Amino acid sequence: MNDGSIGLLRQKLGEIADVNSAIALLQWDQETYMPPKGANARGQQLATLSALSHRLLTAPELGILLEQLRQRSTGLDPDDAILVSETQYDVKRSTKLPESFVHEFAEEQSKAFQVWVEARAQSDFRKFQPNLERMVELLRRKADLLGYEGSPYNALLEEFERGMTAEQLRPLFAELAEQQSGLVKQITNAHRALDTNWLNQEWAPAAQWELSLRVLREMGYDLEAGRQDKSVHPFTTSFDKYDVRITTRISSKDLFSGLMGSIHEGGHALYDQGFLDKDRRGTLASAPSLGVHESQSRMWENLVGRSLPFWKRCLPALNELFPSQFERVTAEAVYAAVNRVQPSLIRVEADECTYNLHIILRFEIEVALIEGTLKVSEIPDAWNAKVKAYLGLDVPNDAQGCLQDIHWSHGAMGYFPTYALGNLYAAQLFEKILEEIPDLWSRVEAGDFAALLAWLRRRVHVYGRRKTANEIICEATGQPPSAAPFLRYLAKKYGALYSL
Amino acid sequence: MNDGSIGLLRQKLGEIADVNSAIALLQWDQETYMPPKGANARGQQLATLSALSHRLLTAPELGILLEQLRQRSTGLDPDDAILVSETQYDVKRSTKLPESFVHEFAEEQSKAFQVWVEARAQSDFRKFQPNLERMVELLRRKADLLGYEGSPYNALLEEFERGMTAEQLRPLFAELAEQQSGLVKQITNAHRALDTNWLNQEWAPAAQWELSLRVLREMGYDLEAGRQDKSVHPFTTSFDKYDVRITTRISSKDLFSGLMGSIHEGGHALYDQGFLDKDRRGTLASAPSLGVHESQSRMWENLVGRSLPFWKRCLPALNELFPSQFERVTAEAVYAAVNRVQPSLIRVEADECTYNLHIILRFEIEVALIEGTLKVSEIPDAWNAKVKAYLGLDVPNDAQGCLQDIHWSHGAMGYFPTYALGNLYAAQLFEKILEEIPDLWSRVEAGDFAALLAWLRRRVHVYGRRKTANEIICEATGQPPSAAPFLRYLAKKYGALYSL
Repeated sequence: MNDGSIGLLRQKLGEIADVNSAIALLQWDQETYMPPKGANARGQQLATLSALSHRLLTAPELGILLEQLRQRSTGLDPDDAILVSETQYDVKRSTKLPESFVHEFAEEQSKAFQVWVEARAQSDFRKFQPNLERMVELLRRKADLLGYEGSPYNALLEEFERGMTAEQLRPLFAELAEQQSGLVKQITNAHRALDTNWLNQEWAPAAQWELSLRVLREMGYDLEAGRQDKSVHPFTTSFDKYDVRITTRISSKDLFSGLMGSIHEGGHALYDQGFLDKDRRGTLASAPSLGVHESQSRMWENLVGRSLPFWKRCLPALNELFPSQFERVTAEAVYAAVNRVQPSLIRVEADECTYNLHIILRFEIEVALIEGTLKVSEIPDAWNAKVKAYLGLDVPNDAQGCLQDIHWSHGAMGYFPTYALGNLYAAQLFEKILEEIPDLWSRVEAGDFAALLAWLRRRVHVYGRRKTANEIICEATGQPPSAAPFLRYLAKKYGALYSL
Repeated sequence: MNDGSIGLLRQKLGEIADVNSAIALLQWDQETYMPPKGANARGQQLATLSALSHRLLTAPELGILLEQLRQRSTGLDPDDAILVSETQYDVKRSTKLPESFVHEFAEEQSKAFQVWVEARAQSDFRKFQPNLERMVELLRRKADLLGYEGSPYNALLEEFERGMTAEQLRPLFAELAEQQSGLVKQITNAHRALDTNWLNQEWAPAAQWELSLRVLREMGYDLEAGRQDKSVHPFTTSFDKYDVRITTRISSKDLFSGLMGSIHEGGHALYDQGFLDKDRRGTLASAPSLGVHESQSRMWENLVGRSLPFWKRCLPALNELFPSQFERVTAEAVYAAVNRVQPSLIRVEADECTYNLHIILRFEIEVALIEGTLKVSEIPDAWNAKVKAYLGLDVPNDAQGCLQDIHWSHGAMGYFPTYALGNLYAAQLFEKILEEIPDLWSRVEAGDFAALLAWLRRRVHVYGRRKTANEIICEATGQPPSAAPFLRYLAKKYGALYSL
């Protein structure tokens, strides 16, 4: 009886999805191919399309249609019922933000991004400060418009990790900080330096690129429905499940940075390529939270890509692509090098033992900015003090400090915690995977990732937004999300590597 | 007194321009970087955004605002008055096409484009035929919706060459066909083969790419506000005057195809980079007709790029980029080779003497399709017969025949005639340029294109749509557009080359 109305809903959602895909393309292009002088116009284009998307999502007709469908929801197919309720969630949230605010926010994002690129190149936080001040002001207004209980930060967090709060994160992060700092101290005290001198060579960029494409193909990333490009900051974007793109960055001085970036983004891309065909152009073709999305990228990057069997698999390709450079290097040596623990300044290059510490310091700064207990001008000092406290390092300049990440230029505060949650979800899912696919490691060593991908498709990807993060983890592993599996994983892996 | 209203108008036009820029980016990406499986979603995205753009342009509030402004037009700044009248022209035309039609047309464009790519690769017109049949049907409906006097083809022609009619083109094209066929016969009968054997080598694609970028920079194309990529069919697109992009295609077997494509598209790009800053995101930042736009690409490609001084300028670069391959080749030899007259099957590779003949046969087929005197299924036979009649050649397959051009897959009938008009306008403008810049050729030989570009900027580019094609040609040259300068140019250049 509701076919007509559901059809109309799908048509309207399809239009919104199309506008959002155009926005995603404008952003992808901005970070890959756009000529520098195009930035100003691009900002206006993004602002206009964001406002249009917002206008379509908050149109009164859509709200009325959804409410009519919800009231009849007993007559709806369960899939349609969840489509209605998830869309209503989005509409309610969006309706709280006036179109003028959305437009202003999008325009400031583009401006701030351009200034951040320059400020980072010149390592000058003061250059970026006025933009970030405007951005924090906009974010505080956004939190007020959205409404919240507890910290105003929760209003922002909700966008990236639905249902999560600063109050829940504080004790969780305190436990992680304590345990991980402890492990790092043990490792430092062990004075067992893993040999990484052989890494100090030039690694031909073209060979790195080829290696990354081979690995991506083997993981199951469909390059007929995606592509890899270069950008300052690696990212994944999706215009449809059949057009999911990733970027990476290649440095001739760093063998791992490009490849691990590709594997990480490839993990994200596999998720987006794994949504159901029937969910295309609709509300359900997305992850329930960024933490769940990140669990996929981190699983592929760290739990698979930093395993010994993975490097056993890669060694012949390394020998072929970097002739003579791997003659006297074993898979074990590569495994040790790619897992070397060393507190460092740059988050995206951090090892698994220190990574969450980078997140925790950002979380603390963000919360303080949004709660109004820290001024933007105070960020460099706060940052540097926290890096000293958590990582024991002095920050020599802003580029290697508080300017290193793109996120704040995009106004994405509340985003960083999802990286740490992704680590936890990934470890918890992976414990279960090893139980259910007992020969996983021999498969990885043979370059066969099909069983792993099939498990992830079945237990995570196909649901899209039909289940919450909590439901996905509970149903797949039988336990609610916790830090324990991740801490067990670190202790076992690094205990062995560093003979603790 | 109208400041507020004009401001509102500019804001609305800015939004429409932004949506149109997003459409242009979706199209650019479709032809450069989009993975093949992304085609279906891209079609929907383009259809949705085209419908949105149409909805914004035909919104009743905009129509009312324009009419209010027009009625007060004595109080308006002349620039604002023309903005109002040109926008009203666009709105009136668009209002005749219902949004559902615009959506359907855009969707069919994307589908037809994908099928055309495959059909061309397989050289199988029958594969493309159903799409083209739907497209011709849509075009006939479009002509009826738009209305016309004389031929229904005039309704389509108006989109590309405002004010031009099939009735005006028929005698003009008859004169060109007669004169150019006659010249080709003279050349053929002269039996003076220009030496082009040295061209049968491999020309390194990377060196070709570098050469094209050097030439583009020298022409004055701002690569900080544009870029060059590769596509099946070269094109220029603009998202703003500070983001104007071109594409070309490179073949290792053909020294000229890539470079001449780049120069041609570079000529278009210089036009779009030359609009006034104050016209950005508005109606006036475009050419009055495609014929005028094409006059710029053809002037740079043919009148400059196929001149002897240009090749004298390029010879050192050719020697540097293609070591040993130019040791025994003179600028005169390159000049002769790049101007060799030989009837051929492919329009974009045609020489200046035969090019318009390709256009005339397409014009005749298009008019017959739209007037209903030719069926789509009859195109290959009609095409092949006309190629035989005008060029004396047998068409061996569809890929080299009626499938060679992208235009029909985009539903762009009425477009081809503008290429021939571009040749005429270019020659007429260039006669004047040689009069006003008497040392032009010594400048070209020195790589100094600044005076030429400044002339074009002043006499053509800065006007945008403020003047009609006719006004631009008349005011710049003192004469209404005619075929005479082009025919004089051909007779002089080819008379000398072939000692007629």
